[in-house]
Amino acid sequence: MSPLEHKKNLPIGVFDSGLGGLTVVHAIRKALPSESVVYLGDNARVPYGTRSAQTVVRYAESCAAFLQTMGLKMLVVACNTVSSVAMPALREQMSGPVLGVIEAGAAAVTAGRPSRIGVIGTAGTIRSNAYIREINRLAPECLVHQESAPLFVPLAEEGWLEGEVPLLAAKRYLEPLAEKKIEVLLLGCTHYPLLTPSIERALIELGCDAAVVDSASAMAASVRNVLRGHDLENDKGKKGILDLYVTDMPGSFHAAASRFLNEEIKGVTCVDI
Amino acid sequence: MSPLEHKKNLPIGVFDSGLGGLTVVHAIRKALPSESVVYLGDNARVPYGTRSAQTVVRYAESCAAFLQTMGLKMLVVACNTVSSVAMPALREQMSGPVLGVIEAGAAAVTAGRPSRIGVIGTAGTIRSNAYIREINRLAPECLVHQESAPLFVPLAEEGWLEGEVPLLAAKRYLEPLAEKKIEVLLLGCTHYPLLTPSIERALIELGCDAAVVDSASAMAASVRNVLRGHDLENDKGKKGILDLYVTDMPGSFHAAASRFLNEEIKGVTCVDI
Repeated sequence: MSPLEHKKNLPIGVFDSGLGGLTVVHAIRKALPSESVVYLGDNARVPYGTRSAQTVVRYAESCAAFLQTMGLKMLVVACNTVSSVAMPALREQMSGPVLGVIEAGAAAVTAGRPSRIGVIGTAGTIRSNAYIREINRLAPECLVHQESAPLFVPLAEEGWLEGEVPLLAAKRYLEPLAEKKIEVLLLGCTHYPLLTPSIERALIELGCDAAVVDSASAMAASVRNVLRGHDLENDKGKKGILDLYVTDMPGSFHAAASRFLNEEIKGVTCVDI
Repeated sequence: MSPLEHKKNLPIGVFDSGLGGLTVVHAIRKALPSESVVYLGDNARVPYGTRSAQTVVRYAESCAAFLQTMGLKMLVVACNTVSSVAMPALREQMSGPVLGVIEAGAAAVTAGRPSRIGVIGTAGTIRSNAYIREINRLAPECLVHQESAPLFVPLAEEGWLEGEVPLLAAKRYLEPLAEKKIEVLLLGCTHYPLLTPSIERALIELGCDAAVVDSASAMAASVRNVLRGHDLENDKGKKGILDLYVTDMPGSFHAAASRFLNEEIKGVTCVDI
């Protein structure tokens, strides 16, 4: 096998602070079924969204270092909080391409050239202004309005996806964005796609017809572009392998992961990074 | 100063995974104003409630080891998750008395000899069955019904203390307990006292007249009993000193701590434990 062929067979490394990044893995597996994926959920230290930037960079570097030991052709940062503060540090650390969910989300949400974009995310992501910066780098004329929606992660993890509580929470978070007449809403946290039905209903009830852009699908499209650009796409047709690692509680992660991924999982390995 | 007088002047060490334990500090400062308190909020690793027992024990030992370096006369474990799994390990580690919030809460909730008790807490606390065990040790004839209420912590931290969302969440969590006709409800998480108005309203709307027992006040009463039992009470009349330590983000902790404690705070020190 040539060195390039060997490199094509290497897995894509994906990490997040917990479960959320599995929505990205699901989208990658659907769009690029021949690619192997190694996922690390750092659930011993979840959530990252409430931590200082310095702490998040330190955590991200240790996740990337662990995945690097697996031999990667590409690193995908599924965590919005990490993408908002740690990309320069990770690019310095890794030899191959590194893609962050914020770059991918910003590319997708500006594709239709809207003039008013809404972004929701965790407190840490919103406080960083990373989406505003990245969107305005791609579309300087675009107005970006953002709101943090901290209850969406516990609602998604609790499985309260539809009904009164998530609808009322969504209306409360989205009302200021609806008032700004946003045309597109970017879900800037990998957990949020699970709440899409409640988010869409809240927008309708608020009289806002914004389209909802899901960062997981945006991410899968960007991964394909990057692999093609580096001639690293695995087009063997053979189904890629999925390896799952966590830093705590592999049992409860396993149960939730099957739901997030919608496929049978062979096992989850707990590691101390 | 005699060695005993010196010991009486030492601070009480209190720790929790984050902010919640400050409700216990507030209750101790109110009940025992001459006592000095050193508080550690391990907010770099919050929340403990979703972690494995093994990880929680490891975290608790490192918190206790840090506080021990301050010279303590007593250690108070304000974290329900830690109290449910790590008390034997902590008692082995520390030389002085160690009090856990579960023992204190169980003592308070059984004081009136009820026959049906309800307990709410984080997923980890409820899964451990620690409240059932401790209540039935004190009152073997008592029926204990419990429910996890994971959204209450993010609601308390988000400041959504009253209104539709916390009321609907409270009704959803408390309905099974109201159906069991509980006579007392123990708030088995130090964050929950902040939601007491919504919890009480939900009980009324569910047709349940259970009294709500707050574990922070229960804890302060137990601390006094333990100090008296060991002849360690500081009765100098001089206002005790309060020192606050965190493992991440002292700035945002400072702002929230003033609210929780209802007093001016001189400063919060960030430490790496």
